[in-house]
Amino acid sequence: MLSAVEPKLDTDNQTVYFRCIAGCPGKHSIFDVIYTCPSCGSLLEVHHEREPLKKRDASQWKQLFDSRVGTTQWPHGSGVWGMREWVVPALTDDNVVSMFEGNTNLFWAERLGQQLGVPDLWIKLCGNSHTGSFKDLGMTVLVSVVKQMMAQGSPVKAVACASTGDTSAALAAYAAYAGIPAIIFLPAGKVSTAQLIQPVANGAHVLALDTDFDGCMKIVQEVTQDNSIYLANSMNSLRIEGQKTVGIEIIRQFEWEVPDWIIIPVGNLGNISALYKGFQLMMDLGLISRMPRLVAAQAAKANPFYESFKNGFKEKVSMTAQQTLANAIRIGDPVSYAKATKAIVETDGIVEQATENELAAAAAHADLTGMFTCPHTGVALAVLTKLLKRGVIKSDDKTVVISTAHGLKFTDFKVGYHESTLEEVTSQYANPAVHLPARVDAVKAEIEKRLMH
Amino acid sequence: MLSAVEPKLDTDNQTVYFRCIAGCPGKHSIFDVIYTCPSCGSLLEVHHEREPLKKRDASQWKQLFDSRVGTTQWPHGSGVWGMREWVVPALTDDNVVSMFEGNTNLFWAERLGQQLGVPDLWIKLCGNSHTGSFKDLGMTVLVSVVKQMMAQGSPVKAVACASTGDTSAALAAYAAYAGIPAIIFLPAGKVSTAQLIQPVANGAHVLALDTDFDGCMKIVQEVTQDNSIYLANSMNSLRIEGQKTVGIEIIRQFEWEVPDWIIIPVGNLGNISALYKGFQLMMDLGLISRMPRLVAAQAAKANPFYESFKNGFKEKVSMTAQQTLANAIRIGDPVSYAKATKAIVETDGIVEQATENELAAAAAHADLTGMFTCPHTGVALAVLTKLLKRGVIKSDDKTVVISTAHGLKFTDFKVGYHESTLEEVTSQYANPAVHLPARVDAVKAEIEKRLMH
Repeated sequence: MLSAVEPKLDTDNQTVYFRCIAGCPGKHSIFDVIYTCPSCGSLLEVHHEREPLKKRDASQWKQLFDSRVGTTQWPHGSGVWGMREWVVPALTDDNVVSMFEGNTNLFWAERLGQQLGVPDLWIKLCGNSHTGSFKDLGMTVLVSVVKQMMAQGSPVKAVACASTGDTSAALAAYAAYAGIPAIIFLPAGKVSTAQLIQPVANGAHVLALDTDFDGCMKIVQEVTQDNSIYLANSMNSLRIEGQKTVGIEIIRQFEWEVPDWIIIPVGNLGNISALYKGFQLMMDLGLISRMPRLVAAQAAKANPFYESFKNGFKEKVSMTAQQTLANAIRIGDPVSYAKATKAIVETDGIVEQATENELAAAAAHADLTGMFTCPHTGVALAVLTKLLKRGVIKSDDKTVVISTAHGLKFTDFKVGYHESTLEEVTSQYANPAVHLPARVDAVKAEIEKRLMH
Repeated sequence: MLSAVEPKLDTDNQTVYFRCIAGCPGKHSIFDVIYTCPSCGSLLEVHHEREPLKKRDASQWKQLFDSRVGTTQWPHGSGVWGMREWVVPALTDDNVVSMFEGNTNLFWAERLGQQLGVPDLWIKLCGNSHTGSFKDLGMTVLVSVVKQMMAQGSPVKAVACASTGDTSAALAAYAAYAGIPAIIFLPAGKVSTAQLIQPVANGAHVLALDTDFDGCMKIVQEVTQDNSIYLANSMNSLRIEGQKTVGIEIIRQFEWEVPDWIIIPVGNLGNISALYKGFQLMMDLGLISRMPRLVAAQAAKANPFYESFKNGFKEKVSMTAQQTLANAIRIGDPVSYAKATKAIVETDGIVEQATENELAAAAAHADLTGMFTCPHTGVALAVLTKLLKRGVIKSDDKTVVISTAHGLKFTDFKVGYHESTLEEVTSQYANPAVHLPARVDAVKAEIEKRLMH
C-alpha cells in the first residue's frame, strides 16, 4: 500500500533498548531479564533512537499507520502492532502474541458534553477489550517479548505477577494465548473465585499464600531470583510501550489533530507516563506540533500524586492508600512517579482528585447519557467537572476522557449505587425498578407520570 | 478521499422500505410505526433496491468502506454507519445515535485452531462493545430511526421492550445516549438489580409487573396501541439492518476475501438472518462472488431450529425451551424462522446442536487458549468441534466463529464451572487456586510440579 521504501526493522536491537530514567550510562537489551537500573535501582525505560525512525517523514508514518487499521493482516490488525516500528521493532512476526487488541472506539459524548458544558467531549473506551481493561495493551508487548526470549534460549519458563485485578487478568489471557505458563501470587482467604475468574479460566497457576500482600511480594522476589520466571509487575517498562499507543491512536482517530485535554485516572502512574511517551515520540518525528495537556485524576482516598502536585513536585508523597470504590487505582506509593511528574510538567498538565461521592455521582450521571462507566472513569469525569467549574478547561476545548475499564467489571459498584448502599455516597441518580400490578391503567399512569417529568 | 461522485443518499426513502417477507404487495416507510405485514402478519424486511446502489461499482464500495474505518468522522467512525448507504440512507447525520459501535476485532485463534485441527480459525469478538453483546449493532439503527421519526413529528414518545437480557441493555444504552425515554417491562420478583443493572444505570423506566412474561407482553401490546411507544422487540426488522454489518465487516477485515465457514450461536434467528442479508447484498453488488457457508449453533435444550433442519425444513418446529447455560438463546419459537431457513438453504449451511456439557467444555477449553467465552460462544465452538470430527469442516478451511457476548457478562457460568457446581457438566478443565504456606520451598515445589506437567 505504501510506495516508500520499508526501513529495515531494528532486528538487532541496537537502536531500541532499556536505559535508566535517572540517566545512568548503559544500554540493556529489552530481551534481558532486567527490571530496574543495576547501578541506581531506578526504573528503566525503553528508548527508541530517533535517527532510524526519521527515515520516514511524518506523512509517511501517518499513511503507514492509517493503512494498517481494521484489517486482519498479521500482526498489524492490532492497534499496538500496527505501530510496531515504534513499539518493539526487533520482534519477529511469529513471536507476536496478539488478539488484535487496541483500535477501541473513541466516541463523541454528545449529551454528556452538552450537560457538562463542554460539547466537544470524547470518550476513549479502552475497556472494550478482551480482558475488560486497557492492560491488554501492555501485556501483548510483555508476553511477546517473553515469547521471543524463550525462542532464543532464555532460562525463562513462565511469567508471573502478584495481583488480584486487571493485571493478572491481562497477563493470564495473553500467556494462555501464547501457551506460556502464568503464575499469579495472592494472599490466601481474601479473594473469591469470582474476583479471580479471569486468571482461573485462562488456566493460570493461581497460588494463594498464607501471608499478606507484602509477604507475597517477598516470596515472589525470592522465587524469581534464578530468572526462570519473568515478572510482569508494574516496574516492568515493557508494558508502557504498549500503553503508549493509546495516545497515538487517539490522535490518529482524530485524523492527526491534537485535542486540548486528555484526562486519565491514575494510580501507579504507568498509564499517564505511557501517554506522554507516545506524544513525545510523535513530537520528535513531526507528527504533531503541540502536546495535549494531560490531567491525572486521582481518588481522594489514594491521592499521593495529587499531594505531590500540590507541593509543586518538590518531593514525592507516599501514603497508605485508603479503601476506595476506584480500587484499581488504590495505590499509596506509585511506581512511575518520576516519569509521570515529567508528563505533567512538560504538558502543562494538572493533577486533581475526586471524593467517593463525586466519583460515584459522575459515573451515574454519565450512565444516564448512555455510558456504563467504571469507578475510575467516574474519577476522571468528576475531575473534568471540577476543572470546567474552575474555568481551567474552557467550554470550547476539545477534551478526551480515557475510560480505562469496562463497567461490566464493576457491577457491584453500580448495584450498590442504585440500591443506595455505598458508603460516603448519596445516590442522587438512583433508579430502582417500579413494582406495578399487571393492569394497563396502572402501567399507563406510571409511564405518563415519568414522561411528564 | 474518494474520487468517485457521491451518489445521492435515498433521503426520500423511495428505494429503501419495509416489505413483507411472504411477498404481499406494498411498500411501507421504515419511519412508520409498523412491525409486521398488515395483510398477512408475516415479518417485514428492509428492502434496498439494487439499482441506485449500482451507481458505485464493487471496487468503489470497497474503497469507500475501507476509507471510513477507525476515524472519528461523524457518523462513519461507527462500523454500522461506515456502511450507511447500505443500512438506512435516509437518516440525516444529526439523527444518527451512535457510540461508534462495531469495528470489533477479528482475531486469529492460533493455539485453539491448532488444537482443534483447523489452523485457519478466527474469532469475531462482537462482545467487545458498549453493552457487552452484538445487540448494540441493531439498536444503533433502531434508535436512530426513532430519533428521526420524533424529529419529524411522529407520536412516538418512548421506546420499549420486554426483556431482561442483552436487548434491554442495548436499548437502554442507546436510548440514553439519544435522550429518548426507554421502558423495560418484566415480571416482578424474578430478576435482581444485578441482572438489570445495565438498563437501571442507563436510566430506563423499569416496570416490574405482577405477572409472567406472557402477561407482560399482553400489557405491552395494549399500552403501545396508540403508537406513542415504539417496540424494540425481535419482530422489529430494523435491528437486522445493523446486525447485517457484522458479516460485511468480517469480509472487509479479511481484505474482501470470503471465509469458508461462519458459525454463529442462534436463538430467535435474527442474527443469522442478518448475516445472510448482508452477504446477499454483497453478492448482488459484486463485492463477493461466493457465499460463506453458515452454521447455526443451538443449545440442545432449546433446539427448535435444529429439529426443523433435521426434518429438512418441511415444517417449523416449536417447543418449550428448557433451562440452558446459554440463556440468551433459550428460545422455543424463533421469530425469524423463515428468514433463517433461507439463510441456511441458500448458503448450503448446517444447523447443529451442543449439550450443556459440550458447550461448557468448549468454552473452558477456549479460555485456556486466551479467550473468555460466553456460553453461547461455547455452543458455537462445540458445534465446530463436531463438524470437524465429522469431516464436514476440513482442516484447511478458513473458519470464523462469531462470539456474540463478552464473557464478563457470564462470570457466574465460569465460577460455576471452575467450582464444579454446574448441572449436567463435568468440569474437566476446572482450575482452582492452590493454597500454600508462605514458604519459598513449598512455592518452588508446586511451580515445578505444574511446569513438569
